[in-house]
Amino acid sequence: MSSSDPQPPIAFSKIGREIQSPVIVDLMARALANPELLSLAAGFTDNAVLPRELVARFASELTQAGLADEPLQYGQNQGRARLRELSCEVIASHPGEQAVAFDPSNMFITNGSQQALYLAVQALCDPGDIVLVEEPSYFVCLEMLKGLGLRPIGIPCDDAGAIIPEAMAALLRDLDAAGERARVKAVYLVSYFCNPSSRSLEADEKRAVAKVLLDAGYIVPVMEDAAYRELFFEEAHPAASIISMLEFAPFPKLYLGTYTKPFATGLKVGYGYCTHSEWLGKILGIKGHQDFGSAHFNQALIERVLEEGLYEGHLAGIRKHYARKAQVLEGELLAGGLKELGWRWETPKGGLIIWARAPIGSDLRMESEFCQRCIEQGVLYVPGDLCFSSGEPWHCARLASGALPEDRLIEAAQRFVAVAKQM
Amino acid sequence: MSSSDPQPPIAFSKIGREIQSPVIVDLMARALANPELLSLAAGFTDNAVLPRELVARFASELTQAGLADEPLQYGQNQGRARLRELSCEVIASHPGEQAVAFDPSNMFITNGSQQALYLAVQALCDPGDIVLVEEPSYFVCLEMLKGLGLRPIGIPCDDAGAIIPEAMAALLRDLDAAGERARVKAVYLVSYFCNPSSRSLEADEKRAVAKVLLDAGYIVPVMEDAAYRELFFEEAHPAASIISMLEFAPFPKLYLGTYTKPFATGLKVGYGYCTHSEWLGKILGIKGHQDFGSAHFNQALIERVLEEGLYEGHLAGIRKHYARKAQVLEGELLAGGLKELGWRWETPKGGLIIWARAPIGSDLRMESEFCQRCIEQGVLYVPGDLCFSSGEPWHCARLASGALPEDRLIEAAQRFVAVAKQM
Repeated sequence: MSSSDPQPPIAFSKIGREIQSPVIVDLMARALANPELLSLAAGFTDNAVLPRELVARFASELTQAGLADEPLQYGQNQGRARLRELSCEVIASHPGEQAVAFDPSNMFITNGSQQALYLAVQALCDPGDIVLVEEPSYFVCLEMLKGLGLRPIGIPCDDAGAIIPEAMAALLRDLDAAGERARVKAVYLVSYFCNPSSRSLEADEKRAVAKVLLDAGYIVPVMEDAAYRELFFEEAHPAASIISMLEFAPFPKLYLGTYTKPFATGLKVGYGYCTHSEWLGKILGIKGHQDFGSAHFNQALIERVLEEGLYEGHLAGIRKHYARKAQVLEGELLAGGLKELGWRWETPKGGLIIWARAPIGSDLRMESEFCQRCIEQGVLYVPGDLCFSSGEPWHCARLASGALPEDRLIEAAQRFVAVAKQM
Repeated sequence: MSSSDPQPPIAFSKIGREIQSPVIVDLMARALANPELLSLAAGFTDNAVLPRELVARFASELTQAGLADEPLQYGQNQGRARLRELSCEVIASHPGEQAVAFDPSNMFITNGSQQALYLAVQALCDPGDIVLVEEPSYFVCLEMLKGLGLRPIGIPCDDAGAIIPEAMAALLRDLDAAGERARVKAVYLVSYFCNPSSRSLEADEKRAVAKVLLDAGYIVPVMEDAAYRELFFEEAHPAASIISMLEFAPFPKLYLGTYTKPFATGLKVGYGYCTHSEWLGKILGIKGHQDFGSAHFNQALIERVLEEGLYEGHLAGIRKHYARKAQVLEGELLAGGLKELGWRWETPKGGLIIWARAPIGSDLRMESEFCQRCIEQGVLYVPGDLCFSSGEPWHCARLASGALPEDRLIEAAQRFVAVAKQM
C-alpha cells in the first residue's frame, strides 16, 4: 500500500521547509556503508578501545531483579541523580576547576551532548537570531543552527583558530551599528581539543573573550563544548572551564560534556551543566516534550562505571591509544611530504582530529576536484569550509584519526597525500 | 562559583518563554520519589515483567569483539537497517496489515516514539498551527503541542471517546469559516487501547475519519500513535493501521510504535513509519541536528531479540500479566462501590489504563479538593482535564494499572474509592 501511495504536497513548517540533510548523516552513512572507502571524515571512536568488558559486566549486574531505581524502567527527565553527581565530579576533576562549585541540580543527562546543545539553543533562539562561534567551529553545530533558521556568525580567529580579541570587539561594535545587538543570543566555544582545529582555548584567551563581551555589555549565555576534554594525550589542558572562571561569573553558562567520545559511543549518553536556573528550567521543559528522559539503563550503566572508579583507568588506556593514532596519521602526512607541498597543521595534544590547511587559494570543498579525486582514490575527509559560518575559506580539511585501524589509517593518509601531490 | 553566580535576565526564544514544566515530568518524579505515595498516575510498566534475562543475554553477546556493525560504535541517523526491517515485520504481524506494503526505508528509530512524534510535528507546524486530536487524547502530546506554540483542537467524541463523524465534519466547516484551513497541519489519533480512554478505534470509525477529511478536502498528514497496540489482553484489536487502510491512501501517514511499553522501557527505543518521503526526509534532517542517531547499542539489542524470535514469547507473558493487573484495579474499584457512586468506565481490552468518569459536574482537576484529598490519602492519578485540548470537562481520571504490584494496586484503588466516597 504505502509504496504506491500518492505523495500529496505538504505545507511544511519553516524549519521543515529549510532543513537540509545534515552532512554528518551522509558522512556516517558513507563511512559505514563501504569499507573500501577509508574515512578520515566521520569522527568515530576506535572500535578497538570501546569498553566492551565494562559494559558487559555492568549490563549483567543491572539486569538483576530488585535493584532500587530499576534501570530497565523509566527514569527521570533530568537524568539519574547519582549520575549527575558523578558527572559533576568528572568536571571537577579537571585542572583549575572548583569542585565545591558544581551542583548536581544544575546537571542534566541527554542523548549525547548534541541533544543538550539543541535544547539549549531551542530555549534561546528564534529564527533570525545570532550565535557567535569560533572560526573554525564544529560543523554539526553550524548546520544545526542553520537548520533552526539561525545565523551563526564567526568570531574572528587567526589561521590556527585563536580568537583575536580586538577583532571580536570590532565585530560586536559592527553588530551594534547594524542594530543586531538584541539578536545575539549566545556564544558557542569548543574549548578543548576543538573539533575541528584540535587546539584548546588558553585561559588568557577565555578571559579576553569574557572581557570583550562584558566591555561591550553583551551579557549573553556562553556555551562551552568540552566533548573532547577527557581525550588529552599527555597532559590535561590547564585552562579551567568557564564554569569555574571568575571572569565568566556574570554570564549564564552551559558546559557540554559526553561519555560517547571517551567511553561507550553506542550508549549515547551526554550531559549539560547549566548555571542559570531559569534557562535550565526551559531546557528541561523542552526535553520533557522531546523524550521525557534519556535511556535510563544506559545512564545506570555509566553511573556504575563511575561509582566503581573504573572510568579513569579506561581513560588512561585510550589516551595512549589515541595519542598513538594521531602520531601515526601525522607521521604519514609528514613522511608523504605534505608539509613540503605547503600544507600546515598543529600537532594535536588531544582529541581525534588533525586540522590540515593547504596553501591559501586551494579549493578542498565537497564539489572541488580535490575532494572528488579523494573519493575516487577511496579516502574521505570533512571539507573545512563546512566549519566556517560563512563557508569560507576553502583550503582546509578536517582529518579524523580516531576510527581507522593503524594500517588503514596509514593507507588513508597515503591516498590523501597522493591526491595533494597530483594537484 | 556557579551556585553564587548572578542570574542575569535572558531573552529567551518564543518556545523558551512559553514552555511550562511538563506534567509528565512532575508525575514521574513524584512516582519515583516517594514510595508511600501510590501512583496510579505515571504510565510506567511493571518492573516485575521487564525482560531482564533477554537484556542480559544479548548485552553479553553484543559486547563480544569483532561484530559487524559494532553496537558500541555510532550507528546511522535513521537507525539500524535490520532493526528497521524487523520493526516493519512487527507492524505487519498485526491483524489486517498488508505485509508487502511495509518498506524499511520508510522506518526510522528514535528515543522512544515521543521523539518521533516531536520530530514529525517540528517538520509540519509553525507556532499558531492546528493539530486535530481525539477527545480525550494523550496529555503528553497535548502539552508538547502547546509547548511548541501550537493549537491542539479536539475532534468531537462521545463520552467514551468515540469520534462523531458528523460533528467532525462540522468542526472542519467551522475551521474553514474561521479562515483556519491552512493552519490545520495534522491529525493525531491514538488508535489502539488509547492513552487515556483505553478504547481502540474501530475500522469503520477510522474509515469515517478518512471520509470526513477527504470530503472536506483536508488532505493533511495523519499520525497514528500505536504505543499500546502490542499490549492487548485476549485478542489483538482487529482494525488495521492507517498504513494498510485503502481509505487513508490519499493521506501522508506516520505510524508511531515503541519497544518501551511492550519490552524494555529503560532502553527507550521507539520508531516511526512514514509513508511520505519528503516528510520523512525533513524528519531525518531534524533528527540529524537533534542527536544524529539514537543509542546504537540499544537498537542492536532489540534487533537481536526480534531476530531470534523471542519478542512474541515475551509479549505473550506480559499480556496475561497486564490483563490481570487491569482486572485487579477494576475489581477493587467495583468492590469499593465506585459504580454505585455514579462513576463509569469501560473495561479495558488492552493497555495500562482505566479511564474513570465521575458524575458530570465533578471536579477532579489538579487543584480540586478531590485531587488534594487523594494526595493526602497517598494516591495519585492523572486529572482527566489534562487530556482535553480545551481543559474541559473536569470529571475524568486516568488510572494506570501497569506499575504498582498487586497489593499496592489494591491499596491505591481503595484509597481512591475512599476519597470518592467522602466527596
